[in-house]
Amino acid sequence: MNTIDCPTGGSENPTDAICRALARVRRNTPLIHHITNYVTANGCANAVIALGGSPVMADDAGEVEEMVSMASALVLNIGTLNARTVQSMMLAGRKANDLRIPIVLDPVGAGATSLRTRTAHQLVDALHPVVIRGNMSEIKSLAGLDVRTRGVDSTAGLEDAETVAQSLSEKLECVIAITGRIDFVAFEKRICVIRNGHEMLSQITGAGCMTTSLVGTCLGAVKDPWVAAAAGIVCMGVAGELAHEQLQSHEGPGTFKARLLDCIFRLTPEILKASARIEFSGDLLGV
Amino acid sequence: MNTIDCPTGGSENPTDAICRALARVRRNTPLIHHITNYVTANGCANAVIALGGSPVMADDAGEVEEMVSMASALVLNIGTLNARTVQSMMLAGRKANDLRIPIVLDPVGAGATSLRTRTAHQLVDALHPVVIRGNMSEIKSLAGLDVRTRGVDSTAGLEDAETVAQSLSEKLECVIAITGRIDFVAFEKRICVIRNGHEMLSQITGAGCMTTSLVGTCLGAVKDPWVAAAAGIVCMGVAGELAHEQLQSHEGPGTFKARLLDCIFRLTPEILKASARIEFSGDLLGV
Amino acid sequence: MNTIDCPTGGSENPTDAICRALARVRRNTPLIHHITNYVTANGCANAVIALGGSPVMADDAGEVEEMVSMASALVLNIGTLNARTVQSMMLAGRKANDLRIPIVLDPVGAGATSLRTRTAHQLVDALHPVVIRGNMSEIKSLAGLDVRTRGVDSTAGLEDAETVAQSLSEKLECVIAITGRIDFVAFEKRICVIRNGHEMLSQITGAGCMTTSLVGTCLGAVKDPWVAAAAGIVCMGVAGELAHEQLQSHEGPGTFKARLLDCIFRLTPEILKASARIEFSGDLLGV
Repeated sequence: MNTIDCPTGGSENPTDAICRALARVRRNTPLIHHITNYVTANGCANAVIALGGSPVMADDAGEVEEMVSMASALVLNIGTLNARTVQSMMLAGRKANDLRIPIVLDPVGAGATSLRTRTAHQLVDALHPVVIRGNMSEIKSLAGLDVRTRGVDSTAGLEDAETVAQSLSEKLECVIAITGRIDFVAFEKRICVIRNGHEMLSQITGAGCMTTSLVGTCLGAVKDPWVAAAAGIVCMGVAGELAHEQLQSHEGPGTFKARLLDCIFRLTPEILKASARIEFSGDLLGV
Repeated sequence: MNTIDCPTGGSENPTDAICRALARVRRNTPLIHHITNYVTANGCANAVIALGGSPVMADDAGEVEEMVSMASALVLNIGTLNARTVQSMMLAGRKANDLRIPIVLDPVGAGATSLRTRTAHQLVDALHPVVIRGNMSEIKSLAGLDVRTRGVDSTAGLEDAETVAQSLSEKLECVIAITGRIDFVAFEKRICVIRNGHEMLSQITGAGCMTTSLVGTCLGAVKDPWVAAAAGIVCMGVAGELAHEQLQSHEGPGTFKARLLDCIFRLTPEILKASARIEFSGDLLGV
Repeated sequence: MNTIDCPTGGSENPTDAICRALARVRRNTPLIHHITNYVTANGCANAVIALGGSPVMADDAGEVEEMVSMASALVLNIGTLNARTVQSMMLAGRKANDLRIPIVLDPVGAGATSLRTRTAHQLVDALHPVVIRGNMSEIKSLAGLDVRTRGVDSTAGLEDAETVAQSLSEKLECVIAITGRIDFVAFEKRICVIRNGHEMLSQITGAGCMTTSLVGTCLGAVKDPWVAAAAGIVCMGVAGELAHEQLQSHEGPGTFKARLLDCIFRLTPEILKASARIEFSGDLLGV
């Protein structure tokens, strides 16, 4: 495991920084304001609680500015976007910007319809999220690359994921996290590759959304958005592995989903430290 | 266990009245109309079915009056309120009033934003719910006391819960139920304190909402709203205890939530009678 | 087991055709666009994934035509209908018609309120779904028969189910599927009666909605809508039986629901073939 210079200035083993993120979440119980979709909202709320945060879902234009003002981070997820909730995202996001409350954006289905692609771009341009987490298709769509997202699933390979994440991160000046079989977290020249997780995570709806919510929860507790993004993703990946280990041969995604929440809840810094599989690509180190 | 005068006139052990509520729900399968939030709607529907009722979620202004007309109780929950659904709550509530169908209100997040506080007050003033169930912060907000709800979680201690519940109940002439580590159910001078439940209930989203839905289900089957409120709360508390007893050391909130529904489903009057921990505060007895 | 003439022209054992539907779903991963309710959307998405499809929920008027264009089938479910989403159903449905993408309609609560009855009729008249799946009350309501749906639950007996399904199928020229304790799938003169399933399916919310989503998933993979409807219903029924077999005596609907998804995921053509209980009523054969 390499040692990197943290953007916060200190020199710290990155796994230690990630473990610290979990400990901080547990200590601070950050309030995480979500404007999100109705398909996976329940799972996202439960994931945030299991990690140690406090979720609140509120999307009326008449209250989102006030609600986000008391939050430690804002999660914007366009999974079932509509004109009303996108307007609320803009209002909440601008208030978050004013108050320097970090925003994580999940551009669900960007590249599948022009409404999603356009809305994702608008939210990025207007609100400057500190982290954007998506699958390869969604991130490629945000990067203006030729891609056709099929519904909300990625159709793009991960071959050029590092390059795409890094260049989009430089362009947008925010953390770009691409999750899939392997995960990539880029903040300008710093990139880490995370090899945790299990294929069963792709057999339940909401694994991506929940990962974004975990990233948001970490964002609400630690300052460095790159550490927060990696921490949220590693927590989901390690919990997914543990949940799968407990699965019996006759069980499947229904039981897995329940156990996934169990395992997020039972994560400790020690478990993370023993299980995290994070690599830093050499030529991107030494920032 | 004290014996109290029931408002229905008879003298009955309150635990017996509560057991009777469950038996009546199972016998009548009351239809419970919900206008509620999208985060916990699924859990609420499943909780109502598990207790023995029949849930229906319908929130379009064009049908709520007709839908509530065939229901035995109306559950109003402002968890993800918006202008459209609040209008539907008003329409459904007024029709419920006309038809003397009981209403239970869950003022989710009252005190957190002025929209929630204001809406909760409007619904109370216009619709006269027979039961209001909330956490300490939400009820304090309704009582006009100084409080700052943090998202949808309570930040207020329970020291003065009895006094707050009782005085608000007298003012609004309805049952006030405050749930938390300990639960308080006040109807004017009658108060009961319920010590069932388990801390794990605070580790899943929707425990409060589901409790309100169970109260609504009991309201649809028994006349006395104080008995119905206590019955719904005791059912959730006892089921929570049983669900936790079945939990193994590696399990957590995901498995707990599934088992919670199992245990609501398997509740019987006998189990309730053996497990209910209800006290009546002496100076409030003898109504 | 009778052998029937398949509408596609071939002569094939119907159980074989159903098994083939599951195999095709697994091979093709059809994208299934849903415009559906917020109560059971999560379960529907998970059921589609477990069967082998890819679900997408999208309901904004600004994107539904584009989204449905890349889908293999469209699921319309009026469980929590409102003016905005009904308009989106019309837009998506018309585009689906233009592109010959099959539609399955779930007329949740038709007969309970005039809005639901009227909307169900409008969707049927305007969009010509190839399959309509409902409970006996809902289908009777669509057939213009005297019925009063109680919320979203059926109050009608199944005595005349075959006749109702068959005559409505002839009138609307689509597959009519009535599900309940026994299931009926009619396409003009062809009717099959399915005796799979378990009573526990009626103890969770969303079993009907999930069945419709499974039918939609099969519609996205096989051409014959009668085979697709029967296949989706048999898959749910067999998975329900298997899930119940695994249930221990202290467990109930919460654990059952998780296991139901496990069992859909673990279905194979061989399991279906061994467990399907389908009969063809003699006088309706030989089409």
